[in-house]
Amino acid sequence: MEKLAEKRVIRDPIHGYIHIEDKVIWDLINSKEFQRLRRVRQLGSTLMVFPSGEHSRMMHSLGAYEIARRMINEVDDIRNTLTEREKMVLMVAALLHDIGHAPFSHSFESILSCKHELYTAQIITGPSEVANVLRNIDENLPEEVASVIDHTHPNPILSQLISSQLDADRLDYLLRDSYFTGVSYGQIDLDRILRTMRVKNNKVVVKRSSIYTVENYIMARYHMYWQVYYHPNSRSYDTLLKSIFTRLRDLYSENEDILEQYPMYRELLTKKRLSNEEMYLLDDSTCMYSFSLMRRSKDPVLSDLAGRVLNRNLFEYMSADREEYLINECKKKGYDPRYYVVKDHQKQIPYLPYTGDGSDNIYVLMDNGTIEELSNVSQVVKSLSTINEQDERVFYPKEIEL
Amino acid sequence: MEKLAEKRVIRDPIHGYIHIEDKVIWDLINSKEFQRLRRVRQLGSTLMVFPSGEHSRMMHSLGAYEIARRMINEVDDIRNTLTEREKMVLMVAALLHDIGHAPFSHSFESILSCKHELYTAQIITGPSEVANVLRNIDENLPEEVASVIDHTHPNPILSQLISSQLDADRLDYLLRDSYFTGVSYGQIDLDRILRTMRVKNNKVVVKRSSIYTVENYIMARYHMYWQVYYHPNSRSYDTLLKSIFTRLRDLYSENEDILEQYPMYRELLTKKRLSNEEMYLLDDSTCMYSFSLMRRSKDPVLSDLAGRVLNRNLFEYMSADREEYLINECKKKGYDPRYYVVKDHQKQIPYLPYTGDGSDNIYVLMDNGTIEELSNVSQVVKSLSTINEQDERVFYPKEIEL
Amino acid sequence: MEKLAEKRVIRDPIHGYIHIEDKVIWDLINSKEFQRLRRVRQLGSTLMVFPSGEHSRMMHSLGAYEIARRMINEVDDIRNTLTEREKMVLMVAALLHDIGHAPFSHSFESILSCKHELYTAQIITGPSEVANVLRNIDENLPEEVASVIDHTHPNPILSQLISSQLDADRLDYLLRDSYFTGVSYGQIDLDRILRTMRVKNNKVVVKRSSIYTVENYIMARYHMYWQVYYHPNSRSYDTLLKSIFTRLRDLYSENEDILEQYPMYRELLTKKRLSNEEMYLLDDSTCMYSFSLMRRSKDPVLSDLAGRVLNRNLFEYMSADREEYLINECKKKGYDPRYYVVKDHQKQIPYLPYTGDGSDNIYVLMDNGTIEELSNVSQVVKSLSTINEQDERVFYPKEIEL
Amino acid sequence: MEKLAEKRVIRDPIHGYIHIEDKVIWDLINSKEFQRLRRVRQLGSTLMVFPSGEHSRMMHSLGAYEIARRMINEVDDIRNTLTEREKMVLMVAALLHDIGHAPFSHSFESILSCKHELYTAQIITGPSEVANVLRNIDENLPEEVASVIDHTHPNPILSQLISSQLDADRLDYLLRDSYFTGVSYGQIDLDRILRTMRVKNNKVVVKRSSIYTVENYIMARYHMYWQVYYHPNSRSYDTLLKSIFTRLRDLYSENEDILEQYPMYRELLTKKRLSNEEMYLLDDSTCMYSFSLMRRSKDPVLSDLAGRVLNRNLFEYMSADREEYLINECKKKGYDPRYYVVKDHQKQIPYLPYTGDGSDNIYVLMDNGTIEELSNVSQVVKSLSTINEQDERVFYPKEIEL
Repeated sequence: MEKLAEKRVIRDPIHGYIHIEDKVIWDLINSKEFQRLRRVRQLGSTLMVFPSGEHSRMMHSLGAYEIARRMINEVDDIRNTLTEREKMVLMVAALLHDIGHAPFSHSFESILSCKHELYTAQIITGPSEVANVLRNIDENLPEEVASVIDHTHPNPILSQLISSQLDADRLDYLLRDSYFTGVSYGQIDLDRILRTMRVKNNKVVVKRSSIYTVENYIMARYHMYWQVYYHPNSRSYDTLLKSIFTRLRDLYSENEDILEQYPMYRELLTKKRLSNEEMYLLDDSTCMYSFSLMRRSKDPVLSDLAGRVLNRNLFEYMSADREEYLINECKKKGYDPRYYVVKDHQKQIPYLPYTGDGSDNIYVLMDNGTIEELSNVSQVVKSLSTINEQDERVFYPKEIEL
Repeated sequence: MEKLAEKRVIRDPIHGYIHIEDKVIWDLINSKEFQRLRRVRQLGSTLMVFPSGEHSRMMHSLGAYEIARRMINEVDDIRNTLTEREKMVLMVAALLHDIGHAPFSHSFESILSCKHELYTAQIITGPSEVANVLRNIDENLPEEVASVIDHTHPNPILSQLISSQLDADRLDYLLRDSYFTGVSYGQIDLDRILRTMRVKNNKVVVKRSSIYTVENYIMARYHMYWQVYYHPNSRSYDTLLKSIFTRLRDLYSENEDILEQYPMYRELLTKKRLSNEEMYLLDDSTCMYSFSLMRRSKDPVLSDLAGRVLNRNLFEYMSADREEYLINECKKKGYDPRYYVVKDHQKQIPYLPYTGDGSDNIYVLMDNGTIEELSNVSQVVKSLSTINEQDERVFYPKEIEL
Repeated sequence: MEKLAEKRVIRDPIHGYIHIEDKVIWDLINSKEFQRLRRVRQLGSTLMVFPSGEHSRMMHSLGAYEIARRMINEVDDIRNTLTEREKMVLMVAALLHDIGHAPFSHSFESILSCKHELYTAQIITGPSEVANVLRNIDENLPEEVASVIDHTHPNPILSQLISSQLDADRLDYLLRDSYFTGVSYGQIDLDRILRTMRVKNNKVVVKRSSIYTVENYIMARYHMYWQVYYHPNSRSYDTLLKSIFTRLRDLYSENEDILEQYPMYRELLTKKRLSNEEMYLLDDSTCMYSFSLMRRSKDPVLSDLAGRVLNRNLFEYMSADREEYLINECKKKGYDPRYYVVKDHQKQIPYLPYTGDGSDNIYVLMDNGTIEELSNVSQVVKSLSTINEQDERVFYPKEIEL
Repeated sequence: MEKLAEKRVIRDPIHGYIHIEDKVIWDLINSKEFQRLRRVRQLGSTLMVFPSGEHSRMMHSLGAYEIARRMINEVDDIRNTLTEREKMVLMVAALLHDIGHAPFSHSFESILSCKHELYTAQIITGPSEVANVLRNIDENLPEEVASVIDHTHPNPILSQLISSQLDADRLDYLLRDSYFTGVSYGQIDLDRILRTMRVKNNKVVVKRSSIYTVENYIMARYHMYWQVYYHPNSRSYDTLLKSIFTRLRDLYSENEDILEQYPMYRELLTKKRLSNEEMYLLDDSTCMYSFSLMRRSKDPVLSDLAGRVLNRNLFEYMSADREEYLINECKKKGYDPRYYVVKDHQKQIPYLPYTGDGSDNIYVLMDNGTIEELSNVSQVVKSLSTINEQDERVFYPKEIEL
C-alpha cells in the first residue's frame, strides 16, 4: 500500500485525531463524492430535539475509518489474521460505508426509488472519482470493497468489523451522536472493547472479562434509539418531510410542469434510479433550498408544510388508535389528512440473538477458550433480548385545536 | 415578565441545559428569523480545517442567552443592580445579537453592501416576527434591545455584558468553538468568572482573586484566533468565496441576465440593502446550492471556483511579498489574477487597553475596593498587550505548479 | 438559618463547585470529626485495581450535600414541600451520612463490634464537635438529623432523598467513583434526574419522560458494582485485611501483651464500642502505619500478611468449590488456612422492587398523574430485576504453587 | 528487552490506560519501593485548597512512564534515534524519577538533611528491590538510569525527555493535577505536542506549527503554579508542617527522650542520611499518624500545631513587611514566634531562556529546517519571559485577633 510522504491528521473531538497514512485513503477523502458528505448531516430530524447535533456524515465516516484503522493496528489478532490487501479493503469500506446516503435519509427513501445501500455500491463501483481512485490501484478493488459492505466478501471478518451488532460504524456513531447532542447515554468504553477483541474460529469475539462493557454498549445503543433517534419530535419532523415529498409526487402526477419550479428534483421525480452525478447534487443544502422555494409555492399544502420544516412548527402526536378521530377533525378544519395525519411506528430490540446465519451476533471468548453467543453468558443481555419495545403514534397539526 | 406555564430546556453540551422561563424568550426562539440561524453555521470557512465544528449560530445565540441568564441569576450584584425590565432586555439582546449574520459572514460582507450589525438592528426593529413579539410587550422594546447591541443604551452595564472584551458572546463562543472543533485552547473557566463578577461604580468588574482566570481567558482567545479562526486554510476558503462573489458581480456588470441563473442573489446584486424577508432567505443552504449551480456554469472562472469550494480544492499560500511573482505566474498559466491571486491580512492583539471611552476594558476589583484596568495589575496581560501579531499571505491555485 | 457573610465554595471536579451558604454547614465542615473524613478513602480495597480512585469520604460527603442542596434549590416540589427546618436537616444529614465510617470499612467491620451506622448516630448525637454545632442551633437537632439517617424521621421524604434506591448518596458516589477511577460506567445524567424529580403523595418520584435516564442509572450502578466494587482483586485485598484483623484478635486472645506493640488498636481489641474520641483517631493513616509495624512483627503470619498489603502482593482466587482442596494444599505448604484460605461471596441485584414497606422503591409519575413503581412501567428494569448475579470465590496465596 | 507474556494495562483517567509490555517495568512496579509511592500524595499541602487532588505519586510516576512510552512509540525521530537499551533506560527513568520523594516533600526537606534527588539515586542504585530488578538485567543498569535523572547520561536526549522545561514529568503532572483538583488551567494538548516532536542536531524540538500549543503549555504551567501549587492556603499548611518539624528538632535538642514518643522519626532526628529501608517506612500515613500522636503531646506547641494540621485550622497571612508587627503581637498573646510567625517567599518565571548550558531550553524547528530557542520565535513567550512574579507573605495564627 502506497504511504503518504507525510502522515496527515484531522482533528476530531471523538478520537483526538483521525490518522491517515495511506495515499488511497487521502485520495478518497478528497474525492467529490466523499466531500459531498460534508453537506449531509448524520442526524437529520433529530436536530429538532437536540439542536447541537449538527455533525456531518463525513465526520462519522472518518470516525468509522479511524476505528477500523485502530482495530488493525491495536488488535493483534486482527493485524495477524488479515492480509495487507484485506486491511486496506477494511479501512476503505469503513470510510465509504455511508457514501450513498441521501439527505434526511429516512424520509428521503420514501421518494427515492431505492435504498442507500444500492447507491453506496453504485458510487463505489463507479463511474465516480471514488471508483477511479480504487481502480487505479487494482481493477477489481471497487467490487471487492462493495462486497464487504453487502456482506458477500469471502472473508466474513471484514463485514463483521464494518457492520454487525458490534462494529466500527455503531461504535463511532454512538460516541459521536452522544458527544454532539450532549446526551450522555452513548458514552461506551471503546478502548476496552478494542483491548479485549480477539479473532477465534474465523469470528471476531470479545473476551469474557469485557462482558460488562458489552452489556453497557447494548444498553447505550438501546437508550440512544429511544431517547434520541426515535424521539417523538424527531419523528414529527420526519413525518413533515414525508408529507412534503408525498405532496410533491402527487402534484407531479397531476401536472408535470412542477418540475420547472423544483429543478433539483427533476431526476428524482422522473427516473427510477439516479446517476452518480445526480446523486452528487443531492445534499442538505439542496433540500433546504427547495423547501424555501416551496414555502413560496402557490400550492397551499406544499407551502404550509415547507414553512413548518423551515421554522420548526412541528406536528403534535397522539397514540395511534386516535387516527380515525384525527382524520375526521382534520377534514373538518380543512386539512387534507393525506398529508396532515401521519402514522409512524418504531420498534427497538436491545439485542437480537440468532438472526439469520448468526454472522450478526456478538460472541464472547470464555476463559476456557470456547466461544459463546453473548445472550448465553450474560444474564443482563438475555433478559434484555426478551424486550421488544414498540411505539406507534399518529402526528397531526396542532392548529386543529382539539 | 410573563413566565411560561412550564419551564423549558434545550440540551446543550456546553451548558448542560439552556433554561427558558420567560414567554418572550420562547416566542423569539420560535420566530422564523431566529430559526433561520439554524441554517447559518457559526464557523464558515473554519470547517475546512476543523471539520467537526459544524455548530449553528442558533446554538451560539442560545448559549450567549444562557450566560446572560446565569449572570442575572448567579451574580448578586447584577441581579440587584438591574431592573426587571433591564434583565429582560439583557437576555433578549444576548439571544438576538447575531440575528443579522449572513452565511459565511466574513466573505459575504464583501458582496453585501452593509454590515451584519445593521441587519441585526433592522430585524429587531422590524417588520419581522421578532419585532412583533417584542412590540407586543412594549411599543419601544425593539428599539431598546437594539440600543444595547449598538452600545447606546443609557445603562452601560447592559452593553458591557453583551459585547466588550469579556462578555456573554465571547465566553460562549470560545467554549463552544473549542468543544465542537476538538481544540482544547478555548476551555476557559466560566464558573469562576461568574462567581467573581461584581458591579462597582457602574462597571462590571472581576475580583482580584480571579486575575489568573482572566489571563487564561485572554490567552485562550488569542490562541483560538491564530490556531482556529485565522488558520491559513480557513482563510484560503474565505478567499475562494470572495473570488466567487467578485466574479459574480463582474459578470453581472457585464450582463444582467446572469440574475436568471442565480435567482437567490437577485436582490443582493441589484439592491443597496436587503429587506428582512430577503435576508430570511439567505442561509448556508442557499449559498451551497448556488455554488452547485455555479459549478455547472458556462463561465469557466465561476465554475472552477465553485467546484473548489464544494470539493475542498483550496488555494495554496505564500508570504505576501510574492504577490507580484504569483500574478505573473498565474497570467502565464491562464489564471485570471483578479480571482486567483488574493492577498489576505490578519492581525490580533491579545488585549487592548484604553480603547475609545474605555467601556470595552476589563476592570479588576482590588482587595482594597478600588478598581484597576486589567493591564495595570496583571504582569501577564501588560506584557501581552504589547504584542501585535500580524500575518499577511497571498493565496493562489496550486495548479500553477511553481 | 444563619447565612455566611460571604458564600463559600469548594472546587470539585464532579459538581464544579460545592456551594456553602449556611453557617451550620461551614461549621460542621470545620469540625474535627468531619475533617477526619479527609483521611478515610471512599474506595479502600478498590485502589488495588483502579489505583487512581484515591478520593476521600470527605469529598463524597461534600458531594452528597451538594446534590441535596441542589434538590432543594432546583426541584420546585421539594423547595415548596419542605419547611426551612427540614431543608437544613436534609443538607446536614447528607453532609454527615458517612461520618461514622471506619477506614477500609468493609474489612474493618469484622473487627469492630458494631456497624458504621451506629457510629454515625453516635457522632451526630455526641459528645462531639459536630453535636455541639448542631445543639447550638437547637437542643433536639442532633437527634432529628440522626433520625433521617436511620429512617425514623416523621417526614419520609427526607430519608428517601438521602438513602433509598435513588438518592443523593448514590448519585454522588456513582459519578465520583467513575470520574476518579477512570471507569466510564457511572456517568449518569444527574441534571436530568433533578429536572424531572417531583413530590407527589408524599413520595419523591421522577417523571415518565425520564424513564430511560433512570434505567441508565440502574445499569450504571449494577456495572459499577461488578466491575469496580466487587472486582476480584479488590476482594482479594479485603480478604488480606480481614485475615490481618483475625490474626490480631487471635494473638490478643493468646497474649494481651500484644496491645503494647499496636497501641492504636487497644480500645478496638478490649472494648465493645469505641468512644467518639477513639473513633476520631481511627483513619487510613492509623491502619497503614499499623501495617508497617506489623510487617516487622515476630509473628510470621502477621508479618507476611502486612507485607502483602503494603506491597500489593495479593491473594489469587479460584471458584469456591475448590476450598477444601486449597485448605489441604495450604497445610502441606505450611500456610495456616485460617488466614490463608478465605471464602468470599458477593451478590448484586440490579433493582429490588417491593422491599419492606416500599419506601426504598423508585416511583414514576405517569403522564396521567398516577404513580407507578418503576419495574411496573420499565420493561428494562422489570427484566433486570429478575437477575440475581452471585459470585463466590476462595482466595489463597499464589506462593503455594498449585 | 524481555516482554511480558501478556501485555498489562492500568486504568488511568488521564491516559485511558497505562500500557506495560516489558517485564522490567512490571517488576519495578511491583517492588516495595515503588509501591510505597501509593502512600505518598503528589500534592501534599494543596489538598487544603483543592481537596479532591488526592492522587498519589505512584499514579504520576506511571503517567510519566506512559508519556515516555508514547514518545518512543509515536515520535518517529525518537524511535529511530534511540537504541533499544536507551529506550528501556528512558522508560525506567521516567517511572522512577520521583522514587526518593518523602511525604509532604517541600516541608519535609527542611527536616531531612538532603534532597529527594539524592534519595532517588540511592534507591535506584540500591540496595533495594528496585536495584535488584535492574541489576538482574545488567550490572550497570542502575547507575545508567540514575545518570539520566541527574543529567550526566552521555545521550542528552534522555535527560531532556525526562526533565527539562518540556518533558514527560511536567506534561503528566499538569494534566493530572488539573484533572484531579478540578482546575481547568492544566489542560494542555499532549497529543499535538507528541505529534510535532522531532529530534534534530541531538536536541528534542517541536515543529513551528505547534508554537501556539507550546505557548499554551507555558501559560498552563505558570497558572497552575500561582493558582494551585503556591496558593496562600497551601503555603499556610506548609508553614504549619515546617513549624512542627522545627519544634520537633528543638525538643529533641533539649531532650533526646522524645524519640521514644515518636519512634518513626528516630533515624530522621539522629542520622545524616536515611537508609533505603528507613526511607521505605516514611510515607503520608507515618506522618499523619505521628501528628495524631503529637496532638496528644504534653508540649503545648507541638500539640497545638499538630491539631491544626489534622483539623485544617490554618494560619492566616499578611504581606511580608508586617513580620515584625506580627512577631510582637504573637509574643503579647503568648504564641512563640519561632513557630507561629513564618515568612514564605515564592517566585515563578513563566519561561527561562538561556539557563546554564541551554539543555533545559525549549527549541523550535522552523519551516526552513533551522532550530530556534522558543523565546526568539514566540512573541508571547518573549514577553512572558520578562515577568518575574514574586510573592512574599508572613503566616500567623488567626487566634491572635489583631
